[in-house]
Amino acid sequence: MRVAIAGFGTVGQGTAEVIAMRGDMFSRNYGEDVRIVLAMDSRSYAADPEGLDPLKLVETKKVTGRVGESTYASSRRLLSETDYDVLIEVSPTDIVTGGVGLDNIICALERGKDVVTVNKGPLALRFHELSELAEDNGCVLRFEGSVGGAMPIINLCTENLVGERIRSIRGIFNGTCNFILSRMDTGLPFEQALKEAQQLGYAETDPRNDIEGFDTACKVVILANSVFGRDVKFSDVSVTGITSVTDEAIALAADHNMVVRLIGEVSDTKLEVAPRLIPRGHALAISGTLNTAQILSDLAGPITVSGRGAGRIETASAILSDLLAIMDRRRGKSL
Amino acid sequence: MRVAIAGFGTVGQGTAEVIAMRGDMFSRNYGEDVRIVLAMDSRSYAADPEGLDPLKLVETKKVTGRVGESTYASSRRLLSETDYDVLIEVSPTDIVTGGVGLDNIICALERGKDVVTVNKGPLALRFHELSELAEDNGCVLRFEGSVGGAMPIINLCTENLVGERIRSIRGIFNGTCNFILSRMDTGLPFEQALKEAQQLGYAETDPRNDIEGFDTACKVVILANSVFGRDVKFSDVSVTGITSVTDEAIALAADHNMVVRLIGEVSDTKLEVAPRLIPRGHALAISGTLNTAQILSDLAGPITVSGRGAGRIETASAILSDLLAIMDRRRGKSL
Repeated sequence: MRVAIAGFGTVGQGTAEVIAMRGDMFSRNYGEDVRIVLAMDSRSYAADPEGLDPLKLVETKKVTGRVGESTYASSRRLLSETDYDVLIEVSPTDIVTGGVGLDNIICALERGKDVVTVNKGPLALRFHELSELAEDNGCVLRFEGSVGGAMPIINLCTENLVGERIRSIRGIFNGTCNFILSRMDTGLPFEQALKEAQQLGYAETDPRNDIEGFDTACKVVILANSVFGRDVKFSDVSVTGITSVTDEAIALAADHNMVVRLIGEVSDTKLEVAPRLIPRGHALAISGTLNTAQILSDLAGPITVSGRGAGRIETASAILSDLLAIMDRRRGKSL
Repeated sequence: MRVAIAGFGTVGQGTAEVIAMRGDMFSRNYGEDVRIVLAMDSRSYAADPEGLDPLKLVETKKVTGRVGESTYASSRRLLSETDYDVLIEVSPTDIVTGGVGLDNIICALERGKDVVTVNKGPLALRFHELSELAEDNGCVLRFEGSVGGAMPIINLCTENLVGERIRSIRGIFNGTCNFILSRMDTGLPFEQALKEAQQLGYAETDPRNDIEGFDTACKVVILANSVFGRDVKFSDVSVTGITSVTDEAIALAADHNMVVRLIGEVSDTKLEVAPRLIPRGHALAISGTLNTAQILSDLAGPITVSGRGAGRIETASAILSDLLAIMDRRRGKSL
């Protein structure tokens, strides 16, 4: 199976590493190997129809800042001119326009190529259009890692729990905010907790996407569209971030044996991101950078999942699970 | 799709109810209906190649104590003489011999019929033999509900996380024990907590299967064989139940901000059931009747799941998820 990787930052590199780590598993269990035939970052690319060495790509990127020596003018043209089976779209997220990621995904689906992505922008902005494009062209669009990183949620809800009527999902979908709020629980003021998150690499230099709740809002939109079959977009979400959470509010909550957590909530009628009071001991009262979600459904009742919401290899592990599902489907077709 | 239900106690009745509830979904999403062509309990049966009314079966069982008016001498012969596609095996568990459930499953697999079961006895005693029988006959054996009830665990590990190298699973797999230990946390002595569990219907009149850890041991064996590919049986598990947990031990644990929980643990080298000290706030320190499991794998890191470990509809919901996976497979084959 020939894959093209669009975007070679942290997640793209992690994906290449995981493909290298699982080399033997692919051929042993799925009857074909996985070859990276194209890897592109924002400026350069490397291509080889016989397959590139995944670890060499990572090394090259680390040393030179570029994944390859060749440059390209249009990623769309580059993708169009490459023979591949699956596009792994992990270029930087643009939640305003969808950016180059949106172009890449459309380009792949139009050609009937399967797509695995964790790019939240295109999914939050144009989910139904992309799903229809995939269906019309007989291919699949998978995006397990776009919500909750390594925490199983999308495929769990849409495949394992496909027989359930899911009433609501409430969760912590941003590890950065949860880290900051957890540190504030120990008495640290917001600004200091944020600085600590930045020093540890949990928060960006410009942290607004996380702390204003925008990232969580994207994930809530993806869940609403994919799990609840709704047709909503980013601007439909009622969003309150954590910048207005005061030290006094945290202290007052603690007096009542509660913590404040940034909760994303989605149901057939709700679409909301806001700081909420959560009783200590509750499944959503977790501390640190983990993500967690409570799925409430009619037959199974409440199901809670948690896992690492971010990380190079963790996010790549979600991409791997989607890749394997696609390999399973290909094998089924060829039987 | 024609199903035969063997066993018409709580779970069998719940399954019939769920099949009735999802009638429209089957035909709409999978292109075929689900007809119960045979329902049998230990003494009687009802059969109709055109399909029995699921809710009438439940009603009949409740009113008369029998699922049908006909009686049978050999369940094996009855199953052999019935035309069906999938056997739902939910007869009472026998963890010593496998009981009639083992016979029924073998009988179905030998004829190439798919099997969905939550019957722990046959799975804990003869897992690999049954898996091979299924493979040799081109059919599938699914058993999501056998561990953790509605908590997703088996299919999560063997399907969603199939690309992971799972290092270990540690969990609370028996809601009865967890309820008793949770009550002991509040100062109740063991005997009184057990009595309360019995009054609430969480514990059997003969509670040994739960409190001696045998039920948890069965689940640990099922996980070892199915998720870890080991070849172990019930007698290989090192089992300590909760009868030796004293009020003093609980109080001492509380002094150190810990609780005692009955933990099942399985890895490539471990196979153990024992009461363990768990720090408060830890994912395994849950109270009440929920089940929970921590899956540790090489790429995703730690993933925690929790859900209702028992219950008529909850267990049936796990059976439903397996049934739908089988319908998906049938649809794939017919395309």
